[in-house]
Amino acid sequence: MLKMKVLNSIKKMQSFSESLRLEGKKIAFVPTMGYFHEGHLSLMREARKLADTVIVSIYVNPTQFGPKEDFSKYPRDLDRDLEMAQNVGVDVIFYPTDSQMYPAGYQTYVDVEKVTRNLCGLSRPGHFRGVATVCTKLFNIVKPHVAVFGKKDFQQYVTIKRMVADLNLDLEIVGYPTVREHDGLAMSSRNKYLSPKERQSARVLFRSLQLAEQMFSRGERHASVIIQEIEKLIKKTPDTQIDYIKICDATSLQDVRQIKKKAVIALAVKIGATRLIDNHVFGEKLKI
Amino acid sequence: MLKMKVLNSIKKMQSFSESLRLEGKKIAFVPTMGYFHEGHLSLMREARKLADTVIVSIYVNPTQFGPKEDFSKYPRDLDRDLEMAQNVGVDVIFYPTDSQMYPAGYQTYVDVEKVTRNLCGLSRPGHFRGVATVCTKLFNIVKPHVAVFGKKDFQQYVTIKRMVADLNLDLEIVGYPTVREHDGLAMSSRNKYLSPKERQSARVLFRSLQLAEQMFSRGERHASVIIQEIEKLIKKTPDTQIDYIKICDATSLQDVRQIKKKAVIALAVKIGATRLIDNHVFGEKLKI
Repeated sequence: MLKMKVLNSIKKMQSFSESLRLEGKKIAFVPTMGYFHEGHLSLMREARKLADTVIVSIYVNPTQFGPKEDFSKYPRDLDRDLEMAQNVGVDVIFYPTDSQMYPAGYQTYVDVEKVTRNLCGLSRPGHFRGVATVCTKLFNIVKPHVAVFGKKDFQQYVTIKRMVADLNLDLEIVGYPTVREHDGLAMSSRNKYLSPKERQSARVLFRSLQLAEQMFSRGERHASVIIQEIEKLIKKTPDTQIDYIKICDATSLQDVRQIKKKAVIALAVKIGATRLIDNHVFGEKLKI
Repeated sequence: MLKMKVLNSIKKMQSFSESLRLEGKKIAFVPTMGYFHEGHLSLMREARKLADTVIVSIYVNPTQFGPKEDFSKYPRDLDRDLEMAQNVGVDVIFYPTDSQMYPAGYQTYVDVEKVTRNLCGLSRPGHFRGVATVCTKLFNIVKPHVAVFGKKDFQQYVTIKRMVADLNLDLEIVGYPTVREHDGLAMSSRNKYLSPKERQSARVLFRSLQLAEQMFSRGERHASVIIQEIEKLIKKTPDTQIDYIKICDATSLQDVRQIKKKAVIALAVKIGATRLIDNHVFGEKLKI
């Protein structure tokens, strides 16, 4: 039995949140595309600690998928998601429809420029415009005081932080560390696409980050030297095709040649037909 | 002596508005670029009727001016504005600086696509992106329940209404009729640029709208026929140069050939070096 509130009307969600705010309640929000794994649940548990009311949205947002991407086959399982969310103490699930979110005549988009142009922005043009737009909409509907984002999608996290600052949204963005499988693979709803053999190959993403951190901790500061070593490692792994391996400033997401300030190594690799991403901020703990 | 509150810090404005909301106060907002005339004051009086607290922003927003436009010479007179605002019962003036609104690294823009591409969007590319962006920012800072816009800037009013609906801003947009001089010239801070001779020529904008409404009321429904007559009228007026004369659907702002549904005639005419705009929705009262 569900005790959790499930809302699919924008108007009802908005007025419910407004009434919570008027009662002085603090709202924490976790926007998701559903098909929950331990990564999502960790964000919800974190949100639970930060506020009186935890609201989770489940919405596979069409505007952040390219025309040749996996929007229609993206995994969905609402009943399972609802049960999992209730078990970690979520108060409200917001579950809107496409026709409510993007009605006929829809034409407004939020673009965060510089930080979205590198990394995944290169191979997924328009992706972050879709993300920034849907997050603006969800923030206006759910009216949270704090929103929790996973750092697995590091560029998304940086983009949303930048957008919130630039547009003066009165909202705190909290980043939560990547949750990993026992062998280091970052949790992702897309891992489900991997065959058992590809699942083995997918371990190379985490091993690449480990190698990069090892080189960094031994004093290597040339981005190209680290990138070359990782490239070698990935290329000798079956079923892999590199989209990018980059080392960037962790705030501006511009490529760096020398690691001086806080920098991130980010990679996108196709394993068979499945594109996976991962990242690591140099000097931070890289744990499973 | 000013009894009115004047704030120039974004943080202070935002927390003041949040505390008003928590007290259950209704906030009405009038965003302006200052240099007040009777048009602005009418918006403030309207706002006064609609809410407990009236907040007016004065900010000449650089991102809505093109590189060759009049940003630097746009008229400013803060002391006069403050006195006028206080006299009509405004509670708070928000007066931010450029470095607070667009700090180093700023990179987020809101684009309303279709409605901004026609009319002034043709000769002022980027203008409405600047308007939509600054309004999003101001709405997030001032947190109003209702915002009042003049219909003299009809495309701006339509753009903001569209943006508020699309981005699910929990806010009502009220449009207020154009306020006119005794001879019909729409009030505008830019009228100040006109020489006495140009001021005479400027009357042609209102006379054009009168002519259009006359033709409409006598049964004319062909946009091109009305536009041609107005073109003739303007061309025989000294110091005029037509930017555009268009008849559009009043919601989508797409050109129409036949006036069937609610339509607007909009014009932009340079009088000497000063570009003036005006508009009229067919069938509505056209009064001075």
